[in-house]
Amino acid sequence: MGLALSLGARGLGRVWPNPAVGCVIVRDGRVVGRGWTQDGGRPHAETMALAQAGRAARGATAYVSLEPCNHHGQTPPCSEALIAAGVSRVVVALTDPDPRVAGGGLARLQAAGIEVVIGICEAEARLAHRGFLSRVTQGRPMLTLKLATSADGRIATATAESQWITGPEARRHVHAMRARHDAVLVGAGTARADDPSLTVRGLGVAHQPVRVVLSRRLDLPEGSALMRTAREVPVWLCHGPDAPGAARDAWDRAGARLIEVLSGPGGQLDLAQVMAALGQAGLTRVFCEGGGTLAAGLLSADLVDELAVVSAGIVLGAEGTPAIGAMGIAALSEAPRFSLRELQSLGGDVLAIWSR
Amino acid sequence: MGLALSLGARGLGRVWPNPAVGCVIVRDGRVVGRGWTQDGGRPHAETMALAQAGRAARGATAYVSLEPCNHHGQTPPCSEALIAAGVSRVVVALTDPDPRVAGGGLARLQAAGIEVVIGICEAEARLAHRGFLSRVTQGRPMLTLKLATSADGRIATATAESQWITGPEARRHVHAMRARHDAVLVGAGTARADDPSLTVRGLGVAHQPVRVVLSRRLDLPEGSALMRTAREVPVWLCHGPDAPGAARDAWDRAGARLIEVLSGPGGQLDLAQVMAALGQAGLTRVFCEGGGTLAAGLLSADLVDELAVVSAGIVLGAEGTPAIGAMGIAALSEAPRFSLRELQSLGGDVLAIWSR
Repeated sequence: MGLALSLGARGLGRVWPNPAVGCVIVRDGRVVGRGWTQDGGRPHAETMALAQAGRAARGATAYVSLEPCNHHGQTPPCSEALIAAGVSRVVVALTDPDPRVAGGGLARLQAAGIEVVIGICEAEARLAHRGFLSRVTQGRPMLTLKLATSADGRIATATAESQWITGPEARRHVHAMRARHDAVLVGAGTARADDPSLTVRGLGVAHQPVRVVLSRRLDLPEGSALMRTAREVPVWLCHGPDAPGAARDAWDRAGARLIEVLSGPGGQLDLAQVMAALGQAGLTRVFCEGGGTLAAGLLSADLVDELAVVSAGIVLGAEGTPAIGAMGIAALSEAPRFSLRELQSLGGDVLAIWSR
Repeated sequence: MGLALSLGARGLGRVWPNPAVGCVIVRDGRVVGRGWTQDGGRPHAETMALAQAGRAARGATAYVSLEPCNHHGQTPPCSEALIAAGVSRVVVALTDPDPRVAGGGLARLQAAGIEVVIGICEAEARLAHRGFLSRVTQGRPMLTLKLATSADGRIATATAESQWITGPEARRHVHAMRARHDAVLVGAGTARADDPSLTVRGLGVAHQPVRVVLSRRLDLPEGSALMRTAREVPVWLCHGPDAPGAARDAWDRAGARLIEVLSGPGGQLDLAQVMAALGQAGLTRVFCEGGGTLAAGLLSADLVDELAVVSAGIVLGAEGTPAIGAMGIAALSEAPRFSLRELQSLGGDVLAIWSR
């Protein structure tokens, strides 16, 4: 199951709206097939592993990191394929909460006389499929909020200089994290200030996450890096009902996808609605890279599932830009708490991943 | 030598103004004597190890984490004691830069026909003796600046609530760090706001570091925890020339030590002078625990040797109190940089130690 989970992880960021599943087929103690959900979500992991195993699948055990699907989509369900291939035992990490599956895959396997074992490495699988589970059960993608800060929690100097607080190893690692998410998200302020490209670079990967920008009034500079490249790598703009028609047209012509979202009581975009719209559009894993106002809004709305903090051994002092904007927290008991999931040094920097 | 360094570390915080030295005597592959500098600085590590070895020291090898002393103080020098005991070989990690020693100890050993090896584990010894070396070569103690912050670099909420951002394991670890320093240092603001006791608690150690408070005008509340306990655990107050006589008298009567320091151009205490005065008074290792203004001043004056950051998985937002006050840094190139020396998780928190 460890191998199945690790194969499945290859699909993270590439298979939405589907889950990134891994499958290993073992016959007489020997691995005869390995598969993982392919780019775009098809073929499924089981299909790939069964094709590799061929006739060796007969009487074998299949380890799958998520319950095999049971509904007829573009292709027949994996439960049927496993039965047809003659596997005698299926070990599953986690049942699929998708109402179209939800135990039906396992029931069909059992009805066909296949031994089914469930719950092996369930905690690891729950983490691996966190984005998919979030979309199915909460209707929104999981959200990772990344902060790259000084040792005193600043993301730029008073004069807005931020390149580079963290070192090259940490920045490379952040690109790898981007690649394992379906989309990268920034606020309009960051898009205006940094003119970022938000692509994955320097890792030899061709696949790129969707680039999502929140801008209520679409007041983003024309000719920006995002606008120029919107046909090469998808750009989605979440805007309010009051975004001017001219700006909508310009982005539409550039090839961006426009997603209208209602404003919240403060006049800003309602972030829960933004996340719901992104889930509706199929995203399962979103990686937010700022700025401080958006970060504060997402935290206040309790939409942040993971906090990835890269800290450098540099001190910028109180005039520096805070990583997280105003949140209106008076008492410690009101502040959102996260638990440490991962800690490592990256070059001379530190990466801590905190989980809600 | 690893053992000698580890024995020496037992004296950290307890032996100032002396170095915390360790000594191991080995005869025929067997440890026959172990010693470390005792509380208050005497006896020296070599004296203790030689006493333990007795006649087994004849023909043995002595491993010492710092060059043996060579000057007659309250007791005869260790170089003479090693010669008298008949050791045939002395292995030393580092020469002592103290002008009263500075190679003289080694020269005397060699003159007596003892084989001397120098520079074994030198980097480790330089770190272990960092406080002593700083005092001898720079005239000031080494300074560790501790920050206990939220994931976004805040040390309290907008309403000054700070107990507790970090968890019990991290706080216990901070007490152990205090105990390995000669003194704990805070600014007057922290002394007023928190009424701290600044003692080492919960570790079963009887030894307490000196408690140093910086307060230019000695405008500290009478009846504070520090004033009440100044006869039990030393309290030193660094104040300016303009501190009122009545306040000086009150603290003097309470048993505190008063250290007058000149003010800098901004009217605040000159922090380089403060550190020089603390070095003059014998301190080799100082542990600063805030607040943000003092932290910023020490960093700006380049007086911070180690930055110990404990981060918790909590987010307080921009209204929270920043860990480090205003520093007037405009460009990243002006900001002090530190390199990562140690990284660990403590309960649910993270401790990163950065070294200048």
